[in-house]
Amino acid sequence: MSQPRTAARVPTLSTVLDVIRERVTVSRVELVEATGLTAATITHAIRELIDVGFVHEVGTAASSGGTPRRLLELEPTACYTVGIQLDRFTATGVVVDLAGHVVARSSMAGAQEREPADVLAFVAEHVNDLLTTAAIPKSKVLGVGVATYGPQDREAGVLLTAQPTASWLEFPLAETLSEALGVPVLIENDATAAAIGEEGLGGSRSSFATVYMAGGIGAGVVLGGQPYRGATSNGVELGHISIDAFGPACSCGNRGCVENIAGPTAVVLKARNTPGLADRLRLRGDTVADFERIARGAKAGDPDALRILEESADVLATATVSLVNLFDVARVVIAGAAFATAGPMYRDAAQAAVDRSAFMRFAHPVVVQLSDHVSDAAAIGGAVMVLRRLFEARPAGSGALVVP
Amino acid sequence: MSQPRTAARVPTLSTVLDVIRERVTVSRVELVEATGLTAATITHAIRELIDVGFVHEVGTAASSGGTPRRLLELEPTACYTVGIQLDRFTATGVVVDLAGHVVARSSMAGAQEREPADVLAFVAEHVNDLLTTAAIPKSKVLGVGVATYGPQDREAGVLLTAQPTASWLEFPLAETLSEALGVPVLIENDATAAAIGEEGLGGSRSSFATVYMAGGIGAGVVLGGQPYRGATSNGVELGHISIDAFGPACSCGNRGCVENIAGPTAVVLKARNTPGLADRLRLRGDTVADFERIARGAKAGDPDALRILEESADVLATATVSLVNLFDVARVVIAGAAFATAGPMYRDAAQAAVDRSAFMRFAHPVVVQLSDHVSDAAAIGGAVMVLRRLFEARPAGSGALVVP
Repeated sequence: MSQPRTAARVPTLSTVLDVIRERVTVSRVELVEATGLTAATITHAIRELIDVGFVHEVGTAASSGGTPRRLLELEPTACYTVGIQLDRFTATGVVVDLAGHVVARSSMAGAQEREPADVLAFVAEHVNDLLTTAAIPKSKVLGVGVATYGPQDREAGVLLTAQPTASWLEFPLAETLSEALGVPVLIENDATAAAIGEEGLGGSRSSFATVYMAGGIGAGVVLGGQPYRGATSNGVELGHISIDAFGPACSCGNRGCVENIAGPTAVVLKARNTPGLADRLRLRGDTVADFERIARGAKAGDPDALRILEESADVLATATVSLVNLFDVARVVIAGAAFATAGPMYRDAAQAAVDRSAFMRFAHPVVVQLSDHVSDAAAIGGAVMVLRRLFEARPAGSGALVVP
Repeated sequence: MSQPRTAARVPTLSTVLDVIRERVTVSRVELVEATGLTAATITHAIRELIDVGFVHEVGTAASSGGTPRRLLELEPTACYTVGIQLDRFTATGVVVDLAGHVVARSSMAGAQEREPADVLAFVAEHVNDLLTTAAIPKSKVLGVGVATYGPQDREAGVLLTAQPTASWLEFPLAETLSEALGVPVLIENDATAAAIGEEGLGGSRSSFATVYMAGGIGAGVVLGGQPYRGATSNGVELGHISIDAFGPACSCGNRGCVENIAGPTAVVLKARNTPGLADRLRLRGDTVADFERIARGAKAGDPDALRILEESADVLATATVSLVNLFDVARVVIAGAAFATAGPMYRDAAQAAVDRSAFMRFAHPVVVQLSDHVSDAAAIGGAVMVLRRLFEARPAGSGALVVP
């Protein structure tokens, strides 16, 4: 398998920090070996990371060569990043330390039909509460990454859609939240964020696709550690490809969209239209919570719940084959709040479908996995993006890192 | 719109040669301005290109600064590359000079159900005839690029499919043709080749997708001048994404594949099953030629032919929206032998579909165009790949170009 073209562009600092995160304690020589970077590059990168307090020396280890090796260690509490996953039906906030560990998390209500100013005020309050609970001063927060639906203008920090209400279209989302919190805020596509949450800082340079389902359905692709961006980061919209060219019209303008046929809203509607099922499962009208109740019902053996979920899983499996056949990835990771209970069923359906019909299955196998952070991947990805942006803003060696 | 990540990796020699091709006569200073490369890099690249005889000096031009600028010109006859497009139903050969002009072309029979050894002997004979006709000595031929269907192992030069017969699977395609012709042979996915044929050497660093239909349906994506490769260059298989999850089984293992529903074979079958139409259009049993007859019938106003093609164009338009929604490109180019006459109808259907339903249409417009080389794009791309491979094999400055 040839190395993806983007691999060599992974920023040095991300790569170095990723290795330190993984190994906990490491020498410069080990960093050279692990990264393939030159000793001079490693020395520069470490100096920068020490200068901003991200890394410190913790003593020496005996060396076979002569002079003992100075050991480096991460300072996990040097700074924190916040990730928010937000869509119509779900929202989650996480606080992540420099080691990549989630030190605080909580779920909150989705945007529903509320106006953006109200939702952002609510999110800001929630972030402040999270930081207070975790006893983290605002001065240590590098920024907030909001993982949300598209289409977006990432640079401007606005949504290019009038969902869920007209006033969301081009509302200054990042700017408003940044003013409310007093820290930088960026936005990211939620499914791409889920993929970034899986990958981390990109040092492992892996390539895979993430199939994401929370309030809606999307996907993200990571190639050589970097997210696939296309022209404007508005691609990999798996929820809005048609699996039925003459199927029902979708609000996006397309027909037979995957999300419209197999997403949580469609699944819950089917369950409500099945006599007796809504009562049996105690459905309450909250889409993602009801979806979870249906998943639990299916797991407990309710045949109607099982059938409805299997239909959805089959459609998403078909869409996963399309994703694989178009992007030629060898690994698919399933993530998103809707997969909390239903994940294994969707994973198995997708694995069976790619085994049966992925176009390149004779060139290489395609593995479907459930994310380790199935419900929080997008929020974690939002937090990771803040650190990535810090490193990408200024390549190593061109001046000091500016850390708030 | 942010620059795609791959842009900076376009090889220097390709970039320089592309500018010289475009401007015909150019000075080193103009090359610096046009490419953004440093004067030293341009000087090195020009020295290499002069050393191998690709470029020569043709005199001087007055300069506003003082010393006159030496002018450079391409030597179009310095070398040639051959491109072959080959699938079950269609095949085309082109000979391309260093300026990128097609100096000889011809169509031949597709692979049909024949054995690979027979087909390759036939192709080799055809290439020799083309070169003889164009009076080009074999010593000036850098190599042959075969644009054909997938899945493939590009590095090994073999197909990973038992289509059209079992013996094609892992048959040493590139090696056999190379031995027969005495020049290097590489293979490339036909739809990717069509995109490369559109892009040329990559100096323009453009980003777009190509929707390709000849014997089958495929697509290619170019980002910042470089083809999208994925894990093994077996992606962007637009013909094998499902637009009907519960539709007819395809030989690839999937259901409701675009190619199976809307490709030339399906279109010709529909025409044959329409009473009287096969006689009216004089269909003869050769898929792509019959497809062309149907397209001409539709153009001449036959209502049955028109309806059948419109159904196919609508399905391909839906698939084009999926391609755009997944790769987020701002431009789609339609190419392939099946579009010789039907191209404008398919283009208009795809343009209407993306205008109506491309997910990122509020972020940027998406334009659908017909290729300037609608029937030959894949063959031209095969020829371009030979030159790209020559330049990619050894980055500028690390040693002399090895030209056969």
